[in-house]
Amino acid sequence: MNTPSPYWLRDNCPCPSCRDPRNGQKLFQIHELPADLAVAERHEADGRLEVLWSDGHRSVYRSQDLAAAPEDDGRTERGKRLWEAADFDNGLPGADWAAYLADPGERAAVLSSVVRSGFALLRGVPPAERQVLAVARSFGYVRETNYGELFDVRVEPDPTNLAFTSAAIAPHTDNPYRDPVPTLQLLHCLRNEARGGDSGLVDGFRAAALLREESPEDFAVLTRTPVPFVFRDRTAELRAERPLIGVDPRGRIREVRFNNRSIDTLRGLPDAEPDAFYAAYRRFAAITLRPGLRLTFRLRPGDCLVFDNTRLLHARTAFEQDGHRHLQGCYADLDSLHSALALLRRQAAALDELEGLFAGEGAGEYLGEAVTLAEHMLQAGALAEAAGAPPHLVAAALLHDVGHFHGSGTELMAGRDNRHSHTGADRLGRWFGPEVTEPIRLHVAAKRYLCTVEPAYRAGLSAASEYTLQVQGGPMDETEAAAFAAHPAAADAVALRRWDDHAKRPATTTPPFAHFRPLLAALMG
Amino acid sequence: MNTPSPYWLRDNCPCPSCRDPRNGQKLFQIHELPADLAVAERHEADGRLEVLWSDGHRSVYRSQDLAAAPEDDGRTERGKRLWEAADFDNGLPGADWAAYLADPGERAAVLSSVVRSGFALLRGVPPAERQVLAVARSFGYVRETNYGELFDVRVEPDPTNLAFTSAAIAPHTDNPYRDPVPTLQLLHCLRNEARGGDSGLVDGFRAAALLREESPEDFAVLTRTPVPFVFRDRTAELRAERPLIGVDPRGRIREVRFNNRSIDTLRGLPDAEPDAFYAAYRRFAAITLRPGLRLTFRLRPGDCLVFDNTRLLHARTAFEQDGHRHLQGCYADLDSLHSALALLRRQAAALDELEGLFAGEGAGEYLGEAVTLAEHMLQAGALAEAAGAPPHLVAAALLHDVGHFHGSGTELMAGRDNRHSHTGADRLGRWFGPEVTEPIRLHVAAKRYLCTVEPAYRAGLSAASEYTLQVQGGPMDETEAAAFAAHPAAADAVALRRWDDHAKRPATTTPPFAHFRPLLAALMG
Repeated sequence: MNTPSPYWLRDNCPCPSCRDPRNGQKLFQIHELPADLAVAERHEADGRLEVLWSDGHRSVYRSQDLAAAPEDDGRTERGKRLWEAADFDNGLPGADWAAYLADPGERAAVLSSVVRSGFALLRGVPPAERQVLAVARSFGYVRETNYGELFDVRVEPDPTNLAFTSAAIAPHTDNPYRDPVPTLQLLHCLRNEARGGDSGLVDGFRAAALLREESPEDFAVLTRTPVPFVFRDRTAELRAERPLIGVDPRGRIREVRFNNRSIDTLRGLPDAEPDAFYAAYRRFAAITLRPGLRLTFRLRPGDCLVFDNTRLLHARTAFEQDGHRHLQGCYADLDSLHSALALLRRQAAALDELEGLFAGEGAGEYLGEAVTLAEHMLQAGALAEAAGAPPHLVAAALLHDVGHFHGSGTELMAGRDNRHSHTGADRLGRWFGPEVTEPIRLHVAAKRYLCTVEPAYRAGLSAASEYTLQVQGGPMDETEAAAFAAHPAAADAVALRRWDDHAKRPATTTPPFAHFRPLLAALMG
Repeated sequence: MNTPSPYWLRDNCPCPSCRDPRNGQKLFQIHELPADLAVAERHEADGRLEVLWSDGHRSVYRSQDLAAAPEDDGRTERGKRLWEAADFDNGLPGADWAAYLADPGERAAVLSSVVRSGFALLRGVPPAERQVLAVARSFGYVRETNYGELFDVRVEPDPTNLAFTSAAIAPHTDNPYRDPVPTLQLLHCLRNEARGGDSGLVDGFRAAALLREESPEDFAVLTRTPVPFVFRDRTAELRAERPLIGVDPRGRIREVRFNNRSIDTLRGLPDAEPDAFYAAYRRFAAITLRPGLRLTFRLRPGDCLVFDNTRLLHARTAFEQDGHRHLQGCYADLDSLHSALALLRRQAAALDELEGLFAGEGAGEYLGEAVTLAEHMLQAGALAEAAGAPPHLVAAALLHDVGHFHGSGTELMAGRDNRHSHTGADRLGRWFGPEVTEPIRLHVAAKRYLCTVEPAYRAGLSAASEYTLQVQGGPMDETEAAAFAAHPAAADAVALRRWDDHAKRPATTTPPFAHFRPLLAALMG
């Protein structure tokens, strides 16, 4: 690895005095680093880079972290699927609402479609008032606007907006006069019995990319001309001045804001600019209207369309004035959707990791008992489930010995208390809340507690368990027992302990780890 | 005036087939204009430009509209007051909460401070839980985040964020890892008995402008380097890639995003860039820390600070761990605040316009009666008020003859029905809802109605009123009367009519127009 910039390297020091291990926030300020910061010594080996700094600080990096591929926020054209209508000849991306709710994999697929293709269609969302808010809240927060928390798209007697008539509407983005513009829009169909009123979507990033290809100068004009958008009625006067095509500092398309209806008078441009702007604007408008770019479909009751309002243009055909067509819509934001997707992916990776532990190391010996570690934990989980325990306690029973992985059980049997209950609870704390981790943290203490308060309990311990009891500190004294009993998770820990003790039966059939995945996923969500 | 670009000119055609008169939305699409659009004839005179277009359309412009100064959305450094701490030696901009609520002028001043200086301080906001939400809702919408609808800033046992400890926090903007970032922040002090814990504000636009002055290349580096911000805990994984200093296409400072704690590893930059970025970043950080830039003050219970999170950096000094310090905060957005301010200004202008009418034309003759038009309307308003009428009806009584302004009364007395009730209602519809305008629209009909259903009423009419009754159509027939009585505003119109009839007493003292301004302002809000 080349020597990187010293401030860059130091700013990324992962040590716990530089970064909060809980959330990765930096604990120092950039100006606190000395003006003459330099590397005093460096040592690189075994995938680790160790640096002693001129100010005495010591950093240890994993080389893989420093060399990782650049991540971005997923908001530019990079990594997205820019599409034309024909790309969806085999159907629109989406899922059934019930499957979306039940299965984290379906949820991730839907959110991922919004990120990659700019939209997804949920089917079977109950066609009831305000249900669109529940869809938005499944991945983020509702953005209230002057139209309310939600808005009704139907023919209104005295419409304040063309949307609330039966007229055709050309492809556009919503609320261009807002800054911050709502980055996501949801449209939920309650009724659609009118003739006409079909929906259309156009990939604005694709249209912008075509403009860049066919007429780079027009593209440049649209990225550099601030366009004043305005909306004015009795209750609002909203203004935003933004280019029609927003690019990031590297020139990548990041936002399309296209709404013919709300463009105010462009003033104060240099002399030739209005002509150049209008030529480019008209050329871009013509591209958005190419039939090949426009995906047309019909929303049916229960359909809920979720789309990126910084990228997709939406449209509708005219419909009969008297026909019954009623959509409810609301706005939300992409950042929360990306966060929800990242959590789902993180959870899937965590479950894969746990499943891998059960299949790998878990197949090994369990402290001299006649079952493997995986069998032991699966039995404990199954016992908790059979006893009707709440999900968090089933999870705790299933995962209670995760702290034994990576060879710690061997240490325990060699007479060293490895504090595996704490190791396991801490490791699981990345993914689960205290309702899961605290009974695990206390499950060794629960054994010591039960030996004190229930003499018959101790008599029933296996030989290995009696041995480890001694390594772990023996039965509690009265003060310890009273303190234990006062802990909020004590009862759960005692219940877990009893399943733990019974989960050592050879040749017992248990459900596989996969059986528990939905339960674990729900606790992570 | 030079001949402007034809598409620019046509796009701004104000005719009602090009623009919806209710909200100014355009009713045509830019691509619908012909490719060879040209001016066929033009005629400019008396401040009007009339254009006949090559496609046969005709546009009439007021020259002043075309020549108006450019407006922007008020979000860049342009027109703002970039400040240093000493600029507030005479006190912080703000108002008492009670005055803010009662007086639109105070409200406008507070919101205007947030726009110009980036902040304002409301005092005397009840130091109660959730009150901060009421402050946000007084000018906009609460933006919910992963921290909830609101968040508590106090020492927490297991903090997920440095904010929830007693540590000092250097100047920063909030939620840099969100895109869209919340553009406004509110902090409401419930308790502050701790030693330390003082608040600090730094004008980030000022700091950025200083960097541009002192080191233009560093400024350029910070505007063009996308910086990855990240926040990751058990419930969220948020990412935004944005430069530390955002500029608009004209290069004006538009957004500062500065938060040392949340900057992730910058990767994928060209070789020399990390060094250039860190040098610029450190120089900018040093500027934000200059003591002269930092405004320091202490929040007291009941204080609520409202500030622009795209401009101001906020900070706090450390405080005693055990001291009681409790703030509640929430986020909101600048676009709604600007809208609220525009409405207040529009309302003030409307009230000035009405007050001017009363003082000017209103001093003239009123249909041959012994009072002026202004005296007549003020008497009607005062009668309604004395009768304990609800505010909307007092307003309707006060304004019921606005349709007579601009000489229409003269026409009526010349025997032509000028439909002044409709003219007035339409004119007032820009500012008031139907509860005010509809009784006005019906107040002439109410006279015709009363003449039919109450013979004694007609006998009491003044001579002038009896004359205009004939011009207006005479008493209603039975069908007309039944239709009138069924109108939702009929009762209000009848009540208004009776005050109208009694408001013709010479030498009666009435409150001036100014007396009614707060009532009118409240109905406009």
